[in-house]
Amino acid sequence: MATLCEKILRDHLVEGTYEKGKQIGIRIDQTLTQDATGTMAYLQLEAMGIDKVKTDLSISYVDHNTLQSGFENADDHKYLQTVANAYGVYFSKPGNGICHQVHLERFAAPGKTLLGSDSHTPTAGGVGSIAMGAGGLDVACAMAGRPFFLSAPEVVNVKLSGKLTKGVSSKDIILKVLQLLSVKGGVGKIIEYSGDGVKSLTIPQRATICNMGAELGATTSIFPSDEITYEFLKKQHREDVYVELKADDDAVYDSTIEIDLSTLEPMIAMPHSPDNVQPISEVEGMKVDQVAIGSCTNSSFLDLTTVGNILKGKTIHPDVSLVVSPGSKQVLQMITKDGSLSNIIASGARILESTCGPCIGMGQSPITNAMSLRTFNRNFYGRSGTLSAKVGLVSPEVAAASAITGVISDPRKFDFDVVEEPAEFLIDDSMIIAPDCDKSKEIVRGPNIKPLPINDPLDNNIHKRVMIKVEDNITTDHIAPAGAKVLPYRSNIEKISEFIFMNNKADFHDVCKEYGGGFIIAGHNYGQGSSREHAALAPMYLGIKAVVAKSFARIHRANLINFGILPLTFTNESDYDTIDEMDELHLNDLHNIEVGKPLTLVNVTKGKEYVVDHNLSDLDIELIKAGGTLNHIKNNQ
Amino acid sequence: MATLCEKILRDHLVEGTYEKGKQIGIRIDQTLTQDATGTMAYLQLEAMGIDKVKTDLSISYVDHNTLQSGFENADDHKYLQTVANAYGVYFSKPGNGICHQVHLERFAAPGKTLLGSDSHTPTAGGVGSIAMGAGGLDVACAMAGRPFFLSAPEVVNVKLSGKLTKGVSSKDIILKVLQLLSVKGGVGKIIEYSGDGVKSLTIPQRATICNMGAELGATTSIFPSDEITYEFLKKQHREDVYVELKADDDAVYDSTIEIDLSTLEPMIAMPHSPDNVQPISEVEGMKVDQVAIGSCTNSSFLDLTTVGNILKGKTIHPDVSLVVSPGSKQVLQMITKDGSLSNIIASGARILESTCGPCIGMGQSPITNAMSLRTFNRNFYGRSGTLSAKVGLVSPEVAAASAITGVISDPRKFDFDVVEEPAEFLIDDSMIIAPDCDKSKEIVRGPNIKPLPINDPLDNNIHKRVMIKVEDNITTDHIAPAGAKVLPYRSNIEKISEFIFMNNKADFHDVCKEYGGGFIIAGHNYGQGSSREHAALAPMYLGIKAVVAKSFARIHRANLINFGILPLTFTNESDYDTIDEMDELHLNDLHNIEVGKPLTLVNVTKGKEYVVDHNLSDLDIELIKAGGTLNHIKNNQ
Repeated sequence: MATLCEKILRDHLVEGTYEKGKQIGIRIDQTLTQDATGTMAYLQLEAMGIDKVKTDLSISYVDHNTLQSGFENADDHKYLQTVANAYGVYFSKPGNGICHQVHLERFAAPGKTLLGSDSHTPTAGGVGSIAMGAGGLDVACAMAGRPFFLSAPEVVNVKLSGKLTKGVSSKDIILKVLQLLSVKGGVGKIIEYSGDGVKSLTIPQRATICNMGAELGATTSIFPSDEITYEFLKKQHREDVYVELKADDDAVYDSTIEIDLSTLEPMIAMPHSPDNVQPISEVEGMKVDQVAIGSCTNSSFLDLTTVGNILKGKTIHPDVSLVVSPGSKQVLQMITKDGSLSNIIASGARILESTCGPCIGMGQSPITNAMSLRTFNRNFYGRSGTLSAKVGLVSPEVAAASAITGVISDPRKFDFDVVEEPAEFLIDDSMIIAPDCDKSKEIVRGPNIKPLPINDPLDNNIHKRVMIKVEDNITTDHIAPAGAKVLPYRSNIEKISEFIFMNNKADFHDVCKEYGGGFIIAGHNYGQGSSREHAALAPMYLGIKAVVAKSFARIHRANLINFGILPLTFTNESDYDTIDEMDELHLNDLHNIEVGKPLTLVNVTKGKEYVVDHNLSDLDIELIKAGGTLNHIKNNQ
Repeated sequence: MATLCEKILRDHLVEGTYEKGKQIGIRIDQTLTQDATGTMAYLQLEAMGIDKVKTDLSISYVDHNTLQSGFENADDHKYLQTVANAYGVYFSKPGNGICHQVHLERFAAPGKTLLGSDSHTPTAGGVGSIAMGAGGLDVACAMAGRPFFLSAPEVVNVKLSGKLTKGVSSKDIILKVLQLLSVKGGVGKIIEYSGDGVKSLTIPQRATICNMGAELGATTSIFPSDEITYEFLKKQHREDVYVELKADDDAVYDSTIEIDLSTLEPMIAMPHSPDNVQPISEVEGMKVDQVAIGSCTNSSFLDLTTVGNILKGKTIHPDVSLVVSPGSKQVLQMITKDGSLSNIIASGARILESTCGPCIGMGQSPITNAMSLRTFNRNFYGRSGTLSAKVGLVSPEVAAASAITGVISDPRKFDFDVVEEPAEFLIDDSMIIAPDCDKSKEIVRGPNIKPLPINDPLDNNIHKRVMIKVEDNITTDHIAPAGAKVLPYRSNIEKISEFIFMNNKADFHDVCKEYGGGFIIAGHNYGQGSSREHAALAPMYLGIKAVVAKSFARIHRANLINFGILPLTFTNESDYDTIDEMDELHLNDLHNIEVGKPLTLVNVTKGKEYVVDHNLSDLDIELIKAGGTLNHIKNNQ
């Protein structure tokens, strides 16, 4: 009566007892990093003093900071390439594609665990991996052979029946799930897909669903591994990694959602949240300024050949800027050879490099007050680089149709050929460089790659002011913004700390410097979104000692612990309302912090006391007391 | 006994007498702008109060600011599109290609005059146009139907004989000419190609030579229009614009250079000047970190198919980042269809959008201390975005060969198929939007598009300090840097003025603000390189009243006059040595400035007097006195 994810997690269990809500440690088979989080991960790996990674496979991708508007990005890439070689990590060169797309094509395997320093790592759930996003330090620990700790999750069963109709896509399935569950609906949970409808979905379609499961706040999402998985792996010349995997017929789930695929219609997530979902019909005809197709969510061969078929023989609307970024070298090469790229170019599209690109705000910021339709996974405020822009998240079909008409359009009203899966994929791994572990070769560190800042051990008492108070659903994009201006400093915590909360409170950095840091007060789901540990590391650098929130997103909470910042939750949510910025707060006797025992937070300014939970495990407490995981590892060597 | 350029110039003469060195006014048939200079040009056109452009053809390209790391670039594009529509200007959408490549393919015509707000406008000389770069204001004037003024040039005859050998390219011809003449060698001159060797060169090869003639400081370069021109135009479905054109057999030139193409070898311009030219053999084997193929110099179908043939079946060196940016939609579409793109992708190249890209520092900055080989036209210090990088300018053949080996390599040692010209070009102008001149449609101005700053009329006396003293060969890249951080502000003079001379004197802006501007002291060839009028407009905004130099580059000198800044030259060059920054200088009685009469510049600090020439024509004096061309036009309406 085991669920699919329980089977895989139990199979990898190395610490703890598998019991819902309890912390377990699991063995990680594969890791991936991308360049925006990877430099930190490898600096941390170096600090651990191991000789060679202990995973079955670790791979370092470059897909985020590829504009290179200065030496910083290229220097990061060179560091990543040379440190990967020294430690036995494969290196995927810039231009080879987006980490999740390439990983799905070339490395992801059913039944394996994958930990990635990117929140969309769950993409590999499309072939039946347990694939999770984490902070760079957790990934570094996994590379060093340490277990990854998580709570044994609740499992949500999404039972699919029927088949999608033409013009409706797997993007619409996950948008439907987001509409049902919200961006907080997956916290602490794994989403497991099942039912007859599964077999109608290709691997890239399943991957799109698992990818954007990250927006549910879920630990991960997973599909069974079946004959369709086998066919996909075979066409990638990787059928040797195939195993059939599915939940037991009598598996018990914590909850179940049923979706009849045949009833779905094209959907859109309107600004500024991925769960602000409506049917396209509600906004049909709204003027569109930009259409962006690509990202780890929708840049597969099937996605782009579908786009090619819709655009074939058409010219896009003169007022629309259409940008297309293929997901990988494999995708680009295949659409080049099969004529789809030619159809896309002919329509008037701009062809970008095979990277994350506009999804991470690396270019293609739309015009002031734009409506931008994107096939991506996030439409957070400001993420496009244009604060006044509105971003709608849609399927490639909706995107292509709307690019032609210049208004939000229903692709079901277009005549186009449905794409068949290719008979085989074009395999060429020449941009993936195998490591030789030759320690005599220099690890090249450009001048922007700064040493890691390290936290001090936890003080027994904290008496500090509230540096910022923020509302619900604050994303790591709010805390540590992405975009072309900030991302070049991902290896330079001192510099990146100047940008922390820049769109919420422009002087946050200066106030922290003046007061030596202090507390952050937050609402629900604090730290949702990207896995970037800079959202913990830079506040730590600025002296933040504790975040007191109504609730946390999983990865960010783990990152806070990794860097020695206390993640506290209000036992009485209304206490949130009684705290203001610059209030003086006090925490006592922290050296005696215990599992399950709440803390008392004193608001000196307001003369109030609050009971707050820490929800820390014994290990978490050790990490926090040491001032973070790196200190803890060093103390125990 | 007329030269080719004399024939065309005389045919377009509307003011003055055609006499070497004398100012003439010519009718302009076509204009082009690009987005980095175009916003200013169209703001200026709007200020002139005309209804519709008066040229045969005016076209607004978008090729520079295409990364869009913020709303500014996209807003500029939208302004350009909407203002073009209102004034009868064609608009080439971003992604359609680099202005010079697209213009050559689709619009350039023998015997026509073309004025472009980009210094590489001479590219169209490849089909026998008189094509000149100029400041945006000159281009706006041409669009408004006003003549373009220049000195009737000296003419240099470059007589070509023989044929290039395999692996040697037209890039090596212009590098040879640069080696012979230097970056100052073309000032005040037109370079006219002739001889038996001409007929062995395709139009794209001729265009490469004319394009990089800009680096000689030449007014323009031109090839005869012959049967090869006809064939090219026919394949572009434009044979109707063909006329045969060549110099008279007894044409008299001011000087002649003879080059036997069969003796040329692959060349390289080493850092940091396009005339620092050596044979490849002298630097063969030097390690290469980056190879960049593209730009208006070398991004034609022939260039990229040649690259494809060299890369075919090969993998580039793991330590090299190879980026390829096709010149136009036509090129991208044709290499997509003929398999060259596929060969390039397979080798491990990164495919960028069809724009200027890394040539203008818009991304792809190489690593710290990099050696970067580029098929571009300029290797000025800092232009790559990485101040410590060394850039070598090479042919596509050398670039591709070196990408494979990871060291500077001679393509003659490689086995590859020589490319034949295509039987026909693929015509698709759907990204070029024809104007409807509907004045009821909004001209969209984003918040970064600021009103034009206007100069005051010339004071009778100027008493100001020296704000900066610079050496020989200062480029407009030194004065007004390009790159991803600065280019977004091309429509915002106040903001861009903060970056003026930032790599020469970081506090130039602040010092100008403190002292209300003053003088610039410079060596020879001041203002070489890009036509950007921001290098005059922003100093004007900062209060610069006069530049005193040993000599000027043509376009920049014209820009200074256009914005009411006095361009003065030392009659005694050694006077330069006696002036220091912050010296107080004095100019008297400027309202009585006369043609041919030198001025006296008093150095109050040093107690010295200098005789300086202004070399202004009567019209120039009127413009300067008015405080620039826009004031002059308004005063005379």
